[in-house]
Amino acid sequence: MTSYQQHAPSAAVTTATDREIHIERIFNASRDRVFAAWTDPTLIPEWWGPRNTTTIVDKMDVRAGGDYRFVSRNSDGSESGFRGTYREVSPPERIVQTFEWEGMPGHVCVETATFEDLGDRTKVVTTSLFHTTEERHGMLGSGMEGGMNETYARLDELLERLAGAA
Amino acid sequence: MTSYQQHAPSAAVTTATDREIHIERIFNASRDRVFAAWTDPTLIPEWWGPRNTTTIVDKMDVRAGGDYRFVSRNSDGSESGFRGTYREVSPPERIVQTFEWEGMPGHVCVETATFEDLGDRTKVVTTSLFHTTEERHGMLGSGMEGGMNETYARLDELLERLAGAA
Repeated sequence: MTSYQQHAPSAAVTTATDREIHIERIFNASRDRVFAAWTDPTLIPEWWGPRNTTTIVDKMDVRAGGDYRFVSRNSDGSESGFRGTYREVSPPERIVQTFEWEGMPGHVCVETATFEDLGDRTKVVTTSLFHTTEERHGMLGSGMEGGMNETYARLDELLERLAGAA
Repeated sequence: MTSYQQHAPSAAVTTATDREIHIERIFNASRDRVFAAWTDPTLIPEWWGPRNTTTIVDKMDVRAGGDYRFVSRNSDGSESGFRGTYREVSPPERIVQTFEWEGMPGHVCVETATFEDLGDRTKVVTTSLFHTTEERHGMLGSGMEGGMNETYARLDELLERLAGAA
């Protein structure tokens, strides 16, 4: 597991249009397993969010029209809520959901995640679409990229543990 | 009141950009009174929605970060939910809120309403910003314009009743 912490690959973050953030990342696990980790409420606390936070799944109804809400608790006890609605859930290929940080209520982006089968690896591409360039700018300036790389490194580790347990 | 039903002015609906709907309408009441009608949960059922519907205010927390949810009941008993979050509430000038029809969950637009003081009249300008042109197209095709003109005609009538009662 240490190897991942030290050598976890960075995700490729690009901004194709002025309202989008596009992220690509390859995981060393089958698509079914990556999709399952992505959508299982009991596994979310194992990987979602930076390492120094604890994630509580308040609600996670993974189906079109279902809502989710995660609470991220920092080491100092402060909490931050994240919520949204699933628009499309097509296992194991595609999820479209809204995303809103409760610290900026009403600023809602749409996240599309696609899972590409590369055999024993999986490419995950997420695209976040914002209403305005300013909102995207806020997200890029929020430390998102570091947090996301940490989150993805934690997902690497979880997938390795699940493979070991299988 | 009958005069309004027969001769209510149409609102001016324009589409300045490919993701917006812009609507202008003048009401025969002071800005304070229009803003109050717009933001008072007890008055919403008196004007919000087409005439053949009954609106129930499930939640309406008019402050930045507050949520609202309205249920529109049709004459056949079927119901439709509408919800969102207030981003900015600046009496009596401006409200920014998200808007989502629960029939298309996760399709969220941002509505900005400004109230311009014209003395004993008030110009209300609303701009709806969608994530995509397709979502705006869906809204324009939903019968929105007719419903909105009926809603605004009902607001004319309410404002006339409130003036009579004052």
